[in-house]
Amino acid sequence: MSARRAINLGLIGVGTVGSGVARILAEKHDVYARVLGCPLVLKSALVRDLAKPRPGLPPGHREILTSNPDDVLDDPDIEIIVEVWVGEHPAFEFISRALEAGKYVVTANKEVMAKHGSHLVALARERGVDILFEASVGGGIPIIAPLKRDLLANRVLALSAIINGTTNYILTAMTRDNADFADALRAAQGLGYAEADPSNDIEGEDARYKLAILASLAFRGQVRVEDIYREGITRLTARDFRYARELGYAIKLLALAREVEAGVQARVHPAFVPLDEPLAKVDGVLNAVQVEGDLSGKVLFQGRGAGSLPTTSAVIADVLDAAQSIIGGRRQVHAREESVTAIVPMSELRTRYYIRLTVADQPGVLAQIARILGEGNISISSVIQKEADEDAQTAELVIMTHLAKEASMLEAIRLLENLKPVQAIGSFIRVEHQ
Amino acid sequence: MSARRAINLGLIGVGTVGSGVARILAEKHDVYARVLGCPLVLKSALVRDLAKPRPGLPPGHREILTSNPDDVLDDPDIEIIVEVWVGEHPAFEFISRALEAGKYVVTANKEVMAKHGSHLVALARERGVDILFEASVGGGIPIIAPLKRDLLANRVLALSAIINGTTNYILTAMTRDNADFADALRAAQGLGYAEADPSNDIEGEDARYKLAILASLAFRGQVRVEDIYREGITRLTARDFRYARELGYAIKLLALAREVEAGVQARVHPAFVPLDEPLAKVDGVLNAVQVEGDLSGKVLFQGRGAGSLPTTSAVIADVLDAAQSIIGGRRQVHAREESVTAIVPMSELRTRYYIRLTVADQPGVLAQIARILGEGNISISSVIQKEADEDAQTAELVIMTHLAKEASMLEAIRLLENLKPVQAIGSFIRVEHQ
Repeated sequence: MSARRAINLGLIGVGTVGSGVARILAEKHDVYARVLGCPLVLKSALVRDLAKPRPGLPPGHREILTSNPDDVLDDPDIEIIVEVWVGEHPAFEFISRALEAGKYVVTANKEVMAKHGSHLVALARERGVDILFEASVGGGIPIIAPLKRDLLANRVLALSAIINGTTNYILTAMTRDNADFADALRAAQGLGYAEADPSNDIEGEDARYKLAILASLAFRGQVRVEDIYREGITRLTARDFRYARELGYAIKLLALAREVEAGVQARVHPAFVPLDEPLAKVDGVLNAVQVEGDLSGKVLFQGRGAGSLPTTSAVIADVLDAAQSIIGGRRQVHAREESVTAIVPMSELRTRYYIRLTVADQPGVLAQIARILGEGNISISSVIQKEADEDAQTAELVIMTHLAKEASMLEAIRLLENLKPVQAIGSFIRVEHQ
Repeated sequence: MSARRAINLGLIGVGTVGSGVARILAEKHDVYARVLGCPLVLKSALVRDLAKPRPGLPPGHREILTSNPDDVLDDPDIEIIVEVWVGEHPAFEFISRALEAGKYVVTANKEVMAKHGSHLVALARERGVDILFEASVGGGIPIIAPLKRDLLANRVLALSAIINGTTNYILTAMTRDNADFADALRAAQGLGYAEADPSNDIEGEDARYKLAILASLAFRGQVRVEDIYREGITRLTARDFRYARELGYAIKLLALAREVEAGVQARVHPAFVPLDEPLAKVDGVLNAVQVEGDLSGKVLFQGRGAGSLPTTSAVIADVLDAAQSIIGGRRQVHAREESVTAIVPMSELRTRYYIRLTVADQPGVLAQIARILGEGNISISSVIQKEADEDAQTAELVIMTHLAKEASMLEAIRLLENLKPVQAIGSFIRVEHQ
């Protein structure tokens, strides 16, 4: 079909993922050449520090390393750039230069795609090329391409996802070991599942980037990172996990986006998930994304959301796709996605709530609490009184509500905090039925 | 991007799926036109009987119906043929004619794709077009495109799937209601989940077609339908479901394909599935496909495997893809898949087994049974003696084995059947740990 002798790649970043990509391209050279009808050749690779040892790199690859971006980005023989640098800058500038030069770009960079995806896709279209980012969300799970292609006939009604492996590992450990957050985090750090500075993961920022990417595709208009409500997992306690299980729920860090009358809701926060729903069973470092389409119904995609090999699987799938576009002479056709999706303020949310309070163990307290909730139009679905502490003369109350408005709930929480017999609001967690 | 005024479609078959496709194309006309930059127009539709009422068809569509295939297949203005006829003939001939004429084909026809997919893909390539068949397996679940594109960087190690909604509905009902097969089938027929003649589903033939399609893609060489071992669900009893649950398993009709040293195993049969594995939780009319890649690890795709709207979701995704190829001027690049995948004979299989026997309730029987199994190199992992029938002086034995070779197991079963104290082999079910 093609008289091409090879398609040359340039690699930007040779860390864990970059080395994995280089190694698999070398190991599977012949397989990929058969798929395409011509070989893929990794021609040069940009690193920050040429002197650093790179044990993961396959034999014979040291000579393609360079610390000069021009060697990769200005090489006219290179048609596809694989960007696996970390962080926003200078990755964004590298990608922009590559697209400007009419090169295809394959990226795993969720921060750049979350913040600049709309601009970069438009730039790629303008230059008649494409930017592919399957590896930016969900590691080896196909989810970007399914949203762009396979579910394109649908109007997406909702996305519900577990897309941060570190927090899911920690939450699974808290459930299994009845551990507190700090202990579970330390254990995860010891095993390499959490970084020394874990804040991006545990505060939900990583999940927010990924949700911005997914929701922008699903709702066909840019969902801005800063419009997504975000709450991390640091305040969860072993006690909440115990109550959750008793009540028939798991606790997960969910990334949710849903079409409602006034626009789209988009939020990342810990949530009670009913144990019989698929997302409740996504444990450890697994990731899962559930997409509800008006035609397809609910479709679940589940697998390993991180790691060098799963990410390499996604990166090379995009490389092969880009190479096929180059060989097939395809001009890119994109859905027009230049609008910004209006995100409904969090105060407008209607959901269910779990509240745990420590109260004075005396008559009439529940009546006072129920009155405050009732005045906010919040109806109670169940109350459990737990573990009276005889010394302190306190009791613990666990309240589950029916659907209520977030603004009313926050106001009720404020009033409850000021109620004399209420000593503390221990937790306040949204309950999400998909 | 394009000066095209429209892309014309022809529809072959206007049953439940065909009417659904026509209705959604009409309802979402403007959305799809925005996605493509030009409208999709359903120009003509082939039916067997013009007089038949078609209440599912959208308004204004009766005038595009024709009973003459030439009106659809010879129309040079039609660039994409959507084939949702049922059965092998004349659908195969319609598709061949369309491809010969240089039209793209989108089909939901699993029988044609299972039997003739390799030939039709080659024909499409020869004519510079494509044949797309996402709707042939798994209804609204994206699985064909992920295997063709998103997991292309992988060597597929194994496929494990629940891909027949009728049998899964029946098996779920048998589990839930502790019903026997005949009763569960009748109930499913009453609800429209099983056809009046259900043999294609309950004997595993439908699942075999779908596995042939998936495995041919996964292992990059044609997997012939007749090479796939097939066993239906008709001999399962309520008793087996009770024992399965006690032992920690669900019973599912699995479609399995796995790379082993000597080639690829491919089989469809009922199996014990450990309750903590994802496939054990796929209930009712849901379908799920688990793909294990050497890079991606295990990836699960789950959703509604049948129904007019989910199938329409898949059909229109393929139509939009074909339309983008036409607009973008893409020449098709396909992996070369003309080889035939060698399927290892079933006798070479190594797996675990569940055997239920009725034996004379007398001393020494278990020793005789254990000796026969031992001579076949089959080691027992557990034995439970159940429900002695005092009147008949019989007992029921449930045996679970460790990994054993199928040929040895069948020989052992033959010997057990001839053993005097063995009155009946009640069941013999493979136990599959993924």
